[in-house]
Order: sequence, then structure tokens, then C-alpha cells
Amino acid sequence: MTFEVTILGSSSATPIFNRNPTSQVLNINERLYLIDCGEGTQQQMLRYDIKASRIDHILISHLHGDHYLGLVGLLSSMHLNGRKKPLVLICPAPLKEIIDLQLRYSDTELQFTLNYIFTSTDKPEVVVVNNDVIIETIPLDHRIACTGFLFREKKRLRKLIKEKIEELNISVAYYSILKKGGDYTDENGKVYKNEELTIDSAVPKSYAYCSDTMYNESYFEQISNVNLLYHEATFLHDMLDRAVITHHTTAVQAGEIASKTNVRKLLIGHFSARYRTLDELLYEAQSVFPHTELAIEGKTFVIE
Amino acid sequence: MTFEVTILGSSSATPIFNRNPTSQVLNINERLYLIDCGEGTQQQMLRYDIKASRIDHILISHLHGDHYLGLVGLLSSMHLNGRKKPLVLICPAPLKEIIDLQLRYSDTELQFTLNYIFTSTDKPEVVVVNNDVIIETIPLDHRIACTGFLFREKKRLRKLIKEKIEELNISVAYYSILKKGGDYTDENGKVYKNEELTIDSAVPKSYAYCSDTMYNESYFEQISNVNLLYHEATFLHDMLDRAVITHHTTAVQAGEIASKTNVRKLLIGHFSARYRTLDELLYEAQSVFPHTELAIEGKTFVIE
Repeated sequence: MTFEVTILGSSSATPIFNRNPTSQVLNINERLYLIDCGEGTQQQMLRYDIKASRIDHILISHLHGDHYLGLVGLLSSMHLNGRKKPLVLICPAPLKEIIDLQLRYSDTELQFTLNYIFTSTDKPEVVVVNNDVIIETIPLDHRIACTGFLFREKKRLRKLIKEKIEELNISVAYYSILKKGGDYTDENGKVYKNEELTIDSAVPKSYAYCSDTMYNESYFEQISNVNLLYHEATFLHDMLDRAVITHHTTAVQAGEIASKTNVRKLLIGHFSARYRTLDELLYEAQSVFPHTELAIEGKTFVIE
Repeated sequence: MTFEVTILGSSSATPIFNRNPTSQVLNINERLYLIDCGEGTQQQMLRYDIKASRIDHILISHLHGDHYLGLVGLLSSMHLNGRKKPLVLICPAPLKEIIDLQLRYSDTELQFTLNYIFTSTDKPEVVVVNNDVIIETIPLDHRIACTGFLFREKKRLRKLIKEKIEELNISVAYYSILKKGGDYTDENGKVYKNEELTIDSAVPKSYAYCSDTMYNESYFEQISNVNLLYHEATFLHDMLDRAVITHHTTAVQAGEIASKTNVRKLLIGHFSARYRTLDELLYEAQSVFPHTELAIEGKTFVIE
């Protein structure tokens, strides 16, 4: 099953040095989930050939402009391009007011339904469950209400061992039971344990998106052991004071978080406009957690 | 005196084919006026090295997203980059509500003052007068309230004829009177006509910005004889029906308007996403008004 994330924007606060404000698109089993939508996201989608029509969920972490100012433009383009199917928007509640106001003054009535799911920072909540994935919010510690998002692949059904099924001539009617882990009893009453007839499916993969936040252990347990952790690393560690004041994380801290939560791999992003190049941020994080990469725009990271 | 316009975006409705939504920057005597501010305008400003700190006036024609969705991001970047000097925002009144709402939910208090001048479509109104320019609104005919903008250079003072001034040994105290067109009387009572002592300054230049609108003669008199007319030409003329329904102009009509108003030169823009290339739009307009050019992004047009 496809499970990969493509970076559309990695800049914090302002676009600069050809870096755009935050946005990523997660492909889970060929369904696209857009995470944050900074200004220019729709232009980035055109650049990297991401079809808006394939997105059915948009998740907005918080209401700082660099995380959502591209949203109304994207919704408007979806509308003008004839979208009819509903879109799920997972976001802080006031975003509805902002969107409604802008649509009202532009005299636009979207030709598709926006189904809102409002996030809360009180506690983690499951916001989406479908055949592919379970999505939870991750309450973060930022200047304004902000949640990250945790994506866990749904556990797949067990796989039938074809030779065994044929050998015992098991009827198709039993397949569903077997895939769910049930045993098989033949017409003579003989019981075959499920493990003899099926094999377990792959272990579900997981992706945690944590931006924007300061270092705070409250969410560590929730993200522990994920396959890929995206964590903001706005500053180098010599700017720790600034990171604390602005409720952001340093690259060293991002490495520490990855290490403490025992994740498989770390991706850092949300880079301050003060850094023309990003190597130092990478080296700092890698000094604590070697398996770190930079969230470079246009790059796709397969989650495995 | 510098008087030139640089195109930052020329797409209508949605960004496509590397064309961004509408924005232009007008340089009048080295002061910058930003006209409309579609999504991605600040990225375009970085691309074409337009310094936001040099902009003191932003003019928004109307509240369709392709004309203003880049504004809150630009204001936010000005704020984060330390702007302290006030900014004049000339726009439909509801834009203040939209901006205030977004700043409120992002917990942002701008460190500079926004001085609003609200536009009206009732009649043309002078919205700015300074040493360089007089700016008037142009009420247009669009689906929602929309005004264009007319920029007329201020008439410069007359220039002294240095040799004559020296020959007659005229005191510096008289210079201001002479520059304003007054005559000179010497100590013997002899009168020298102003025309003998000064020459007229250059004829003031003018720029009219008309987007978005359908063909409507109501604004023709106001824009007549301008040096450069920017006029939207969203569609080819075979889409006239669509142009009427959506309150837009065809390329043929833009040429007709330029011809009827006797302007010096026509610049067409606001191209529909249906046109991958723009040559046909240019040829259509030129078939009526030969002195037409395309508003290509990054291109600067000197108004002369």
C-alpha cells in the first residue's frame, strides 16, 4: 500500500529563498491528504503535478497564516474546476468563519460540500477512520491553539495461504472469517487453527506531523515508535531563547524528541527565514538523531 | 520621472501555466504602488526583486480571491520583517473585516498602521493626492463591486531658462513665482512675460487599470487619452456569451475600448485558464487596436 509524503512548503512565517510556507501531501493507498496549506500551495501542487481532485481531506494545524492562507484560493480553484464531491476539512473551528466570510464577500457558493471536523487541543482525538487509515490529532504547545496529526495505517486483514485453502477445498463463504482471524472447522468437525491457513499482513505504518510546537513531553508518548516523524525545527540551538519565546523547536531538540520517542526516521522542516542554507540545521539534528532528513520541497519520502 | 508598471500576475481566477493571479506594481518617481494582490504575490515580488518596504500604497480592485488572497500574507511578512511606517490600503470596505478577522485569530497585532481608504462604485473619487500623482477610482461593471484605478502624474512646475534668469539677474526669491507661471517685473517696472523666462514641464503621463469588468461605456470618458491602458481581456471573442455572463471582456472588446478612448497604448491581461498560450488573445486585440501588448509576468512597461 502506498504510504508516502511529498513536501510542498518548508518555510516558516514568510516565503523566502524559494521556500514556500508549510504544506505537505500524504498519499495513503492513492488517496491524498493535504496537511496545512500555506500561501502558494496550489501553485506548488501545479509544479509537482499533485491533482487537487484527488484530495478528499485537508488538515489544518493552526491559524497562523503560513499554515492556511492558501486554502481559500485552493477551495475556489476546486470550485471553478468543477469539483462536486465533498471535501473533509479538519481544522480549528474559527477557520469556518474565515472561509465563510471570504466566500460571502466574493459572492461564491461552492458547488461541493465542506464537511468540517473541528480540532481541539484538550486531548488527542480520532478525526478520521476509513479503510486505509486512522487519523488522530496531536495537541501541541504553540502560541495559539495548534494540533499535529498522527496517521496510522489500518491493520490489513490476514492473507489466505492459497495452497492450504485449495488442499482443504475450503468454500469461498469462509474466506472473510479466515481473513479476520477465525479458525476453520471442516464437515467432519476437524478444527484447523487460523495460523495454519493464513499469514499475518504487514505491520501498519505510521506518520506523525508535529508543527508548530515548542519542546513539550506531553505528546511524546503519542508519537512514539512511528515510522516517520515530521517535526518542526525552526531554529538552530543557539536560538533556543527565541524558540522558547515564539513556541518553536530547535534542530537539536527535534533530534532529541526523535530519539526519546524511538521513531524510525525524522524529517525536519518549518525553517526560519534567517537560514539561507539548511545544512547546519540538518547536522545539528543528526548529531542527536542520525536518521534525519530535511523536508525539501518537491521531495517525496516513502514511509517504510 | 520614473513611471512604469511591472506585471506580477496575469491569470484570471486560478493560477495555471506558470501564470499567477492578478498583481502589478506601479513605480511613480521611485515610490511603489501595488495594484491587486492575488495569492503568491509576495513570492512573485521576491522573484522579481520588488522590495515590499518600498510600497506605501496597496490598491485592491474587488473582493474576488484572485485579486486579494495574497494580501494578508504580504501584510504579515511586512510585520515580521519589522515594518514600522504606515501603509495606505485602498479597497472595498469589507476587506477590513476580512483582514481584522484573520489577524485576530492568528493573534497578530501589526506593528505598523493600516490607513484604509474605502472605495465606492457610485462615482469616480480621488483617493490619493501627493507630489507625484493623483489617483482616482474608476467604477467598473463586474459581478461584485469593483473599481479600477486611474493614475495621473501631477503637473510639474515650469522650468527656468537659466540663461535668461542670469541675463536679467533675477533674484532667487522670484524663482517659485516664475515656476508657477507668474510674470516678472524688474525694478524699472518692465514686465517680462513668464513664457520668456520659463519652459513648460513635460505633459503629465497617465495609467488606467481596468480589471475586472464587462464592456460598459460608462468609464470610457474617464480613461480617454491615457498613455497606457491596462484592460482585462479574459476571453477570445468567440466566448462573448461567457464574457457577458461572468462580467468580463473579450480581447476584441479590449481593443475596441482602447480605440474608442483614444489611448496611446493597450496592455491586456487577466487571461482565462482555458488559454495555454496567449498569442491569439494578442492578435485579436491588435486586429482592432494595433498598439497592444500582453501583460507578461516579470515584464516592465515604461509609460511614455
